[in-house]
Amino acid sequence: MAPSLELYEKATEGLPVKPNVTNTHGVPAAVADLKLESSDKHERVLKLFRAFIADLCQQFNGGHPGSAMGMAAIGVALYKYVMKYSPSNCEYFNRDRFVLSNGHACLWQYLFMHLVGVKSMTIDQLKSYHSDKTDSLCPGHPEIENEGVEVTTGPLGQGVANAVGLAMATKNLAATYNRPGYEVVDNMTWCMIGDACLQEGVGLEAVSLAGHWKLNNLCIIYDNNSITCDGTADVANTEDMNAKMRATGWNVLEILDGNSNVAAIANALIAARSSDRPTFINIHTTIGFGSVKAGDAKTHGAALGVDDVSGIKASFGLDPAEHFAIPRDVYDFFRDAPDRGRAFEAEWSATVRKYSERYPDLAAEFKLRVDGKMPDDWTKYIPAKDQLPTAPTATRKSAGIVGNPLGEKMKNFLIGTADLTPSCNVAYNQKVDFQSPELRTACNLNGDYSGRYIHYGIREHAMCAISNGLAAFRKGTFLPVTSSFFMFYLYAAPAVRMAALQGLQQIHIATHDSIGTGEDGPTHQPIALPALYRAMPNTLYIRPCDSEEVAGAFVAAIGAAETPTIISLSRQTLPQYPQHSSRDGVARGAYVFAEAGGGGGGGDDDFDVTLIGVGSEMGFAMETRDLLAEEGVRARVVSFPCQRLFEQQSREYKQSVLKPRSGRPTVVIEAYAANGWERYADAAFSMRRFGKSLPSKTAYDYFGFRPARMAPEIKKLVEEVRRDGIEVLRGDFRDLNGPLGVGFEH
Amino acid sequence: MAPSLELYEKATEGLPVKPNVTNTHGVPAAVADLKLESSDKHERVLKLFRAFIADLCQQFNGGHPGSAMGMAAIGVALYKYVMKYSPSNCEYFNRDRFVLSNGHACLWQYLFMHLVGVKSMTIDQLKSYHSDKTDSLCPGHPEIENEGVEVTTGPLGQGVANAVGLAMATKNLAATYNRPGYEVVDNMTWCMIGDACLQEGVGLEAVSLAGHWKLNNLCIIYDNNSITCDGTADVANTEDMNAKMRATGWNVLEILDGNSNVAAIANALIAARSSDRPTFINIHTTIGFGSVKAGDAKTHGAALGVDDVSGIKASFGLDPAEHFAIPRDVYDFFRDAPDRGRAFEAEWSATVRKYSERYPDLAAEFKLRVDGKMPDDWTKYIPAKDQLPTAPTATRKSAGIVGNPLGEKMKNFLIGTADLTPSCNVAYNQKVDFQSPELRTACNLNGDYSGRYIHYGIREHAMCAISNGLAAFRKGTFLPVTSSFFMFYLYAAPAVRMAALQGLQQIHIATHDSIGTGEDGPTHQPIALPALYRAMPNTLYIRPCDSEEVAGAFVAAIGAAETPTIISLSRQTLPQYPQHSSRDGVARGAYVFAEAGGGGGGGDDDFDVTLIGVGSEMGFAMETRDLLAEEGVRARVVSFPCQRLFEQQSREYKQSVLKPRSGRPTVVIEAYAANGWERYADAAFSMRRFGKSLPSKTAYDYFGFRPARMAPEIKKLVEEVRRDGIEVLRGDFRDLNGPLGVGFEH
Repeated sequence: MAPSLELYEKATEGLPVKPNVTNTHGVPAAVADLKLESSDKHERVLKLFRAFIADLCQQFNGGHPGSAMGMAAIGVALYKYVMKYSPSNCEYFNRDRFVLSNGHACLWQYLFMHLVGVKSMTIDQLKSYHSDKTDSLCPGHPEIENEGVEVTTGPLGQGVANAVGLAMATKNLAATYNRPGYEVVDNMTWCMIGDACLQEGVGLEAVSLAGHWKLNNLCIIYDNNSITCDGTADVANTEDMNAKMRATGWNVLEILDGNSNVAAIANALIAARSSDRPTFINIHTTIGFGSVKAGDAKTHGAALGVDDVSGIKASFGLDPAEHFAIPRDVYDFFRDAPDRGRAFEAEWSATVRKYSERYPDLAAEFKLRVDGKMPDDWTKYIPAKDQLPTAPTATRKSAGIVGNPLGEKMKNFLIGTADLTPSCNVAYNQKVDFQSPELRTACNLNGDYSGRYIHYGIREHAMCAISNGLAAFRKGTFLPVTSSFFMFYLYAAPAVRMAALQGLQQIHIATHDSIGTGEDGPTHQPIALPALYRAMPNTLYIRPCDSEEVAGAFVAAIGAAETPTIISLSRQTLPQYPQHSSRDGVARGAYVFAEAGGGGGGGDDDFDVTLIGVGSEMGFAMETRDLLAEEGVRARVVSFPCQRLFEQQSREYKQSVLKPRSGRPTVVIEAYAANGWERYADAAFSMRRFGKSLPSKTAYDYFGFRPARMAPEIKKLVEEVRRDGIEVLRGDFRDLNGPLGVGFEH
Repeated sequence: MAPSLELYEKATEGLPVKPNVTNTHGVPAAVADLKLESSDKHERVLKLFRAFIADLCQQFNGGHPGSAMGMAAIGVALYKYVMKYSPSNCEYFNRDRFVLSNGHACLWQYLFMHLVGVKSMTIDQLKSYHSDKTDSLCPGHPEIENEGVEVTTGPLGQGVANAVGLAMATKNLAATYNRPGYEVVDNMTWCMIGDACLQEGVGLEAVSLAGHWKLNNLCIIYDNNSITCDGTADVANTEDMNAKMRATGWNVLEILDGNSNVAAIANALIAARSSDRPTFINIHTTIGFGSVKAGDAKTHGAALGVDDVSGIKASFGLDPAEHFAIPRDVYDFFRDAPDRGRAFEAEWSATVRKYSERYPDLAAEFKLRVDGKMPDDWTKYIPAKDQLPTAPTATRKSAGIVGNPLGEKMKNFLIGTADLTPSCNVAYNQKVDFQSPELRTACNLNGDYSGRYIHYGIREHAMCAISNGLAAFRKGTFLPVTSSFFMFYLYAAPAVRMAALQGLQQIHIATHDSIGTGEDGPTHQPIALPALYRAMPNTLYIRPCDSEEVAGAFVAAIGAAETPTIISLSRQTLPQYPQHSSRDGVARGAYVFAEAGGGGGGGDDDFDVTLIGVGSEMGFAMETRDLLAEEGVRARVVSFPCQRLFEQQSREYKQSVLKPRSGRPTVVIEAYAANGWERYADAAFSMRRFGKSLPSKTAYDYFGFRPARMAPEIKKLVEEVRRDGIEVLRGDFRDLNGPLGVGFEH
């Protein structure tokens, strides 16, 4: 079927005629440049593509055939005509980024990768989808480790925000490094979504930001098949999606026949390159196109059945007895992709070469960024211990002192906040905001795309999910920093988890930790959240106790090249311990902070109890140590800012810090749920219920965090152990806060 | 200033002329019924209100004066003219519900409560805001325990979703119990928001659903002051909010002078009663109105300063030397509120009385609901052990067997799913969907407002936050049930936390737990999430191992009247243990599941090791026990479905289950991060990294969960303890899975 005039007009309605991307590197810049194969050819490729997907799912009787089949024509338009990529070098720097936000449709992407000539993606690999093969390149959702996959997707909505981050990365690099005639970065970001991704809040937050920032290098391709697991999508959604996206600042195009009209889709995709805003293409498709169950939710998450698969092939004029068939003419259809890709690469290399001659300094820095290296020696910006405050200071302030010089000088740092600039102290000297230059006049805002300070609005989840996109543009090219109250990293947790899973480095400045945040009350006082982040693989949750430990936290975070770090900071003023605290200690997760009060050389017999002090509550441990010394109880103090870093140390080191065989008890003092501390301690002053709206000091006091109250409890414990032996504590972890009780109290 | 014609028209544009609420119980049903005081009177009340707020914040030099002052005129319109409430009985059942989603503006609500005559809200209470007083009724954010507060708010966006739940509750009760001429439930829900609540994803998810459901008894009042913490709101948001809300299915009204035009606001609020859809009133206000810093973010989260407070009073014509002044005429202005409230109550009581005569059976059930009691004896619907399957069954199937009769019969159960009806098995027999009756024909949907099956779409966060509203309508009137994959309760975690904090009962059916979920891969396999829910106060996270334990989980969940429960279930088939498993055991959190293999009477000397089996991984423990018996190692097995329930048991019971002083080691087997199990065990087979896309059994195998591999490791541990004593394990928690390593592996 040839594209009808009506559809073409629908696809390009309201768009400027001229492309605003000046350098298109060999892909059609304007609709007029598009040279299409015949629609018969398209039809044949689509049939074989769909039959292959049906075969794959049938093979192991599972998987997600429906949307992969429904989206076939979109893929042909994208991979054959529009997207800038290089199958022989999927990592080519200036490639268009493609995000499959509806990750369950991954077979679609895997099969296109095979067809366009990505060498690793063999037929055998395709057949390993959902198999027992432990080194499959075709997991059930796309995974970043595998060639040609930009971000790991699966949890719905995340991909939309990742795509926004990828598009921002392009804008920021372009504004920073491009010079007229030397566009070294100018790729598009394409994001494929299903019905779910814009039902999820994280997707909605992200599209609001993309519209605000006018990211015209971003295109969302909506596979609108009107079907979700529960049936027709209108069972839970009847809004006018096009109007909503327009209100959010997007250009909207619509394709009514997305099943076969490759030409209309290609037109619309190319038109997206010419938009002055991000583009949303609403493409109507049929889930499971070709199946007798087409248009039904049953085709979504299960194989279609042997008979249906045969019937699909028969109805397509293919041989039902033939499986996994890709005839030569189908391969031929995509044959030009590798060469075109190499041409893109060559053109980019030539541009960079010329650029290096014309702008040698800038080019040198640009190449460091391309290589994922720091553009400057960051270590020189971390203040030495003697440059840090000695008067009582909130660690959120300390984090500003340590972090803001990095923010100012390191061009790879993109620093954002979920609308808490005045509270989180991450606004560095002479910050320039990341904003659309158009808004400078329209809204009188400071900033442009070269800006590296990001106002995310009150959108913690999108902030972190967008940061994943920034970090995934190329690992090391950006180091995203986010900031909010620690409590609201619960909103962001699904995105932080995706960073950890993907090995994406980030630093999250999480202020107002613990009940010390005070008057805002229990809604703002985290209790259980640290248990999540301490248990989360590949995540550093660091609670520094003073400025020196804050410096250590930054050093650890910057050194963890494939790990997100949360630096957990106090709202309230904290004592500084220059005689005790150590950034090197932070690197080891825990360390001996103070030997036993009352003297002794630190031997196994020179103390009665070990107190673990943590972050914002360290002061309680140190004061209690002094009170205990007056009572003749020798307490040593261990600072324990990060459990995961400590777990990475040798058994010898760990035992030297905690002395578990000494026969002396260990007590942890932290105003969070104790869960997990049982690995290191026998007893805890901790929180077994939610907090309370009180001034900081009163809140601590209310829950039993007062040295004068803690010391006698610890003394009693020490005496019990002296009398009955350490084994009395086995299997009897002690909650020492007193009668505040477990659970819900009102 | 009198309301201008223009503003009035703006406020009522596009609305039907006749109210659709038939029974307005004494509040104006239509704009024509509104009898206004003079605008001079309004002005005076507004001045004194604002000065009082400024005084309050100045008193302790903190708090949030700006929006409380900006919203003054909205409050006058609402409390004086529109809202149906009873100051002498804030719990009156058919009251309008009011949600302050921008909870930081709570002083606004507290002060209006004082002015309208809520007795507990004294001047002294108002002055206790942000004080050391531990029994203050004026915490930093509104808290549900306090009189006149419908839901605890603070984390932004939550209140919007809560309000949607409250409005649904009304619709469902009305559709179930109202009869023509006997409207026993017909209240409105008013939700006040600031700029943040519709930036947050959870708010955006919720408004989409409210639009879809056509909840015309819901009105969002948008305090549009264009200011957020970072400055002007357009620093992060430039979308057309009115157009967006219209696209989402809302009626939109706009008030340009929200600072003083009480009449226009009252008109719009009354018009909202007549809407055929939910209503969004966009009210332009000035943050910190009256202050020299009015319109600036500086008035948001800090006191204004002594001079400014004096200046405000001077400019208002008030005496700067007078503090906390509420002259008699201001009290007089609100004087009619208590009597009007009592009239509302009396009218409702009369209606219910007549209703009881006309529909005695229905009325009896309705009264049970009003009293927060179960409308039926739920215990009779829980199947006995011998009615449960004995063949291998996935616990998600068992949950359907146990839970669906409850779903069918219990009218207080509102059962929903985040678009996973086919996977989560919560669709009970003859379910009727909760839908707008209008959509029955428009979209050919099954359902109306009496329906109790809720399609939330792919919106896990809103699902749980809306459930909080349902549960908060009146505690016990509804028991909301939600369902999704366990992994996606990370998206919903901020709302589950708010339920726990507020003591709101809910049951979350969380299927596809653990790595056993298989091919969907690491994005869908939770690892750290249980650590969050086990640490979260007042939350039950229950992992049953078979159908009998599933029955126990439901019994525990229904019995926990002020606690949310997550029932964590397998996707994969699991063996059933009718000889071992016990619902009563579940009630105690953990229990002896099987005495040591190879005999013995369960004494302290009759075993070599205790294995803790948990939920979907119980089979590994039991098989390993058998293999160990063959090797002469006597392993007893403890089933441990719920840590929090176990913690509530006596020390004696706990020690009888775990025998910590026996000198024998304890090993837990669970495919999650081990964090927290150290309290009960010395070693673990657990997950120290993210999962992998493999079929269920292969995934377990890959990470070392195979009895033939586990038994030798446990035997080695037993031998080590025999040789070196149990103290060898002190401070040396063993991760037994082998070389899979900590953290990020790729």
